[in-house]
Amino acid sequence: MGSTRPDRRGFLKGGAALAGGLTLGATEPAFGQLPNPDTYIKGTDDLVAYGSRSHHVTSARIAHPPGSQASPDAFGKLFHIASPLQDSVGMITPSSLHFVGTTRGSFVPDINPREHRLMFHGLVDRPLVFTMEDLRRLPSVTRPHFVECAGNRSRTQHKTVQESHGMTSCAEWTGVLLSTLLKEAGVKDAGKWIVAEGVEEVKGASSIPMEKAMDDCLVAYGMNGEAVRPQNGFPLRLLVPGFEGIFNSKYLRRIKVVDRYYMTYNDFGHLTRDPDTAALGYQIGPKSVITFPSAGQQLPDRGFYEISGLAWSGGGAVARVEVSTDGGRRWNDAEIQGTAHRMAHTRFRYQWNWDGQETELLSRSTDEIGQVQPMRDQVREHFNSRGVPGQDNSIQPWRIASDGSVHNAIT
Amino acid sequence: MGSTRPDRRGFLKGGAALAGGLTLGATEPAFGQLPNPDTYIKGTDDLVAYGSRSHHVTSARIAHPPGSQASPDAFGKLFHIASPLQDSVGMITPSSLHFVGTTRGSFVPDINPREHRLMFHGLVDRPLVFTMEDLRRLPSVTRPHFVECAGNRSRTQHKTVQESHGMTSCAEWTGVLLSTLLKEAGVKDAGKWIVAEGVEEVKGASSIPMEKAMDDCLVAYGMNGEAVRPQNGFPLRLLVPGFEGIFNSKYLRRIKVVDRYYMTYNDFGHLTRDPDTAALGYQIGPKSVITFPSAGQQLPDRGFYEISGLAWSGGGAVARVEVSTDGGRRWNDAEIQGTAHRMAHTRFRYQWNWDGQETELLSRSTDEIGQVQPMRDQVREHFNSRGVPGQDNSIQPWRIASDGSVHNAIT
Repeated sequence: MGSTRPDRRGFLKGGAALAGGLTLGATEPAFGQLPNPDTYIKGTDDLVAYGSRSHHVTSARIAHPPGSQASPDAFGKLFHIASPLQDSVGMITPSSLHFVGTTRGSFVPDINPREHRLMFHGLVDRPLVFTMEDLRRLPSVTRPHFVECAGNRSRTQHKTVQESHGMTSCAEWTGVLLSTLLKEAGVKDAGKWIVAEGVEEVKGASSIPMEKAMDDCLVAYGMNGEAVRPQNGFPLRLLVPGFEGIFNSKYLRRIKVVDRYYMTYNDFGHLTRDPDTAALGYQIGPKSVITFPSAGQQLPDRGFYEISGLAWSGGGAVARVEVSTDGGRRWNDAEIQGTAHRMAHTRFRYQWNWDGQETELLSRSTDEIGQVQPMRDQVREHFNSRGVPGQDNSIQPWRIASDGSVHNAIT
Repeated sequence: MGSTRPDRRGFLKGGAALAGGLTLGATEPAFGQLPNPDTYIKGTDDLVAYGSRSHHVTSARIAHPPGSQASPDAFGKLFHIASPLQDSVGMITPSSLHFVGTTRGSFVPDINPREHRLMFHGLVDRPLVFTMEDLRRLPSVTRPHFVECAGNRSRTQHKTVQESHGMTSCAEWTGVLLSTLLKEAGVKDAGKWIVAEGVEEVKGASSIPMEKAMDDCLVAYGMNGEAVRPQNGFPLRLLVPGFEGIFNSKYLRRIKVVDRYYMTYNDFGHLTRDPDTAALGYQIGPKSVITFPSAGQQLPDRGFYEISGLAWSGGGAVARVEVSTDGGRRWNDAEIQGTAHRMAHTRFRYQWNWDGQETELLSRSTDEIGQVQPMRDQVREHFNSRGVPGQDNSIQPWRIASDGSVHNAIT
């Protein structure tokens, strides 16, 4: 290196200046200021075997909708568990903080993997039952994919990004391609759809077109480098990349190959009576949200900030993310972190110098097939014309008040 | 789709045949065979906030060297904690299973992030002290990187891949580029090296050439989507991608810019007296190991298996991995999973049909700058000529006995 002084502001694009923004602690530091803790966490055999996070870190999931809670005595009470996106960094959601869609409230099937089986039947040449050990011997793939609940939508009463968008998460999934297993069973000519069923009685049966089943669906036993977690389907779950969360059957035990679209309990969101339209509605639209700064957070002062957020789409990889810092008048390209993977959360960043005035921050994603995240009014109009509930992938505005507080700006 | 029967063996390359290898449970499955558990894990507020793994999953780290153990009463007893690579899937090591290099045995500094500081001083224009809040406002990056202990080497007495190779792990790290902070402080012309210091007294001071410091080093506060874990340096650690683990100072509190190579306690492995040679020895060589099947595991029968393993290099991205299933006579290209990232674990896979005869499995990696993982004899010769301990990135052979048991085959 042996550099002459590097340009101190060279790394800041778009005119944001670091020096004016940060309130650095000291210009003449002394050793006495450095931390030198005399307290230690005592090791135990448990901490050697499987580590824990710091007791200073309290980021937590919440029951959703807001105000519901874990109900160990109310078996079957429906609620979901939302991920703390406001604290997220990078692309991976830690498994302990992955969102959970449930029909049993806080109850989770307790499955012994040695007894678990996955059956293929229906319109196949050779019905098959796989043990977990069978599955682990087969050719496998590892891919990052998001799973998002179709009901993940922002409402005016939501006070944080966890409440408005916390029912999406992204993990590195490992398993066998569904196509590998279907080919092994041999799909008959008449087999145009599959129905996937998990152990949960109420939820977990979904009709999926054969084209999707043979494309990129994954029978996953691994999640972020270890076994799938119980709340996310241990020991086996289906991944249907880009489709609404409910298709990603947890505790997967059965795949039936059928000749038509089966209307199941899962289809409560797709009652359009036209199977073609219903099928088309499965895919999550292009979406994004700024996770910092987001509602409920507080900017300590004007000056430099890195705006950070997540973008994703059921249509493929995120191709572009734009950020507006003036309520949508001007849009600027955000930086996309690393490689944008297909049907995976993609971290975006934008460098911003806040002048202390009230404003609104927005983000807008475009995916590789050209779909652009819509404004809220466009989505509303679409819903009204269809007369049915559906996905809401509209642009999320956050209002920065002049005191630095951040608020949900949807109306 | 509407396919006619797909070729059932189309996905198996290299002549391995699935049908002959798996012992599938049944050809005429009945519903009664499907699992239908009547036991459930009861939800609690704790499980809503932060999920746990299944009680059926017992994969665990071990104290290293084998036979040592957690010693809550023996403050300062040195041991490391090795990751269970035999159970690994994908690229990411779960933070709870990440290897740990320690000088304090099982004791871990308990740092309050609100009190933590990072100081830059020495040959800089403007000495600076950053709080954690300061750092989180700055432009950040997220990258997957491995960290590996230089002492991670296979010995004849090692009975599992965890014992022979478990002191390497890979996480998705998030933080600020060290170059961003150094530019902010302004490096003087004479500043050719940095010394990085963590809170641990004994370990944690490393001399790093300025060229590396200004290239890709990362001051990381995020790990796999949440805060860095206490055992891995909470709240702040240095990532020096591709350099031996000891350079990746945990509990980072100080960076001093200096004009020469400083000999620190960390250099016990680099006592060659010639700083140039020492510096060149920092980088982890191209390496790989088969994690399944690996020593201590058992193949239930002959037939189809997917050989799976990890490859990595301090020299950049893994460009190629070859596998031999006949003790090194023939080498075959393995499949590399997804994108091979620079200085990151890379999962490789190779489809194999075991004929039931005794054999040896080996893997060999080549990185993007053309370095090839050496045979054990080559490494031995190199060590003998230098007369110093050093890295051992040699090819690991696993012997498959005719009864399907797997053994460490180094001699």
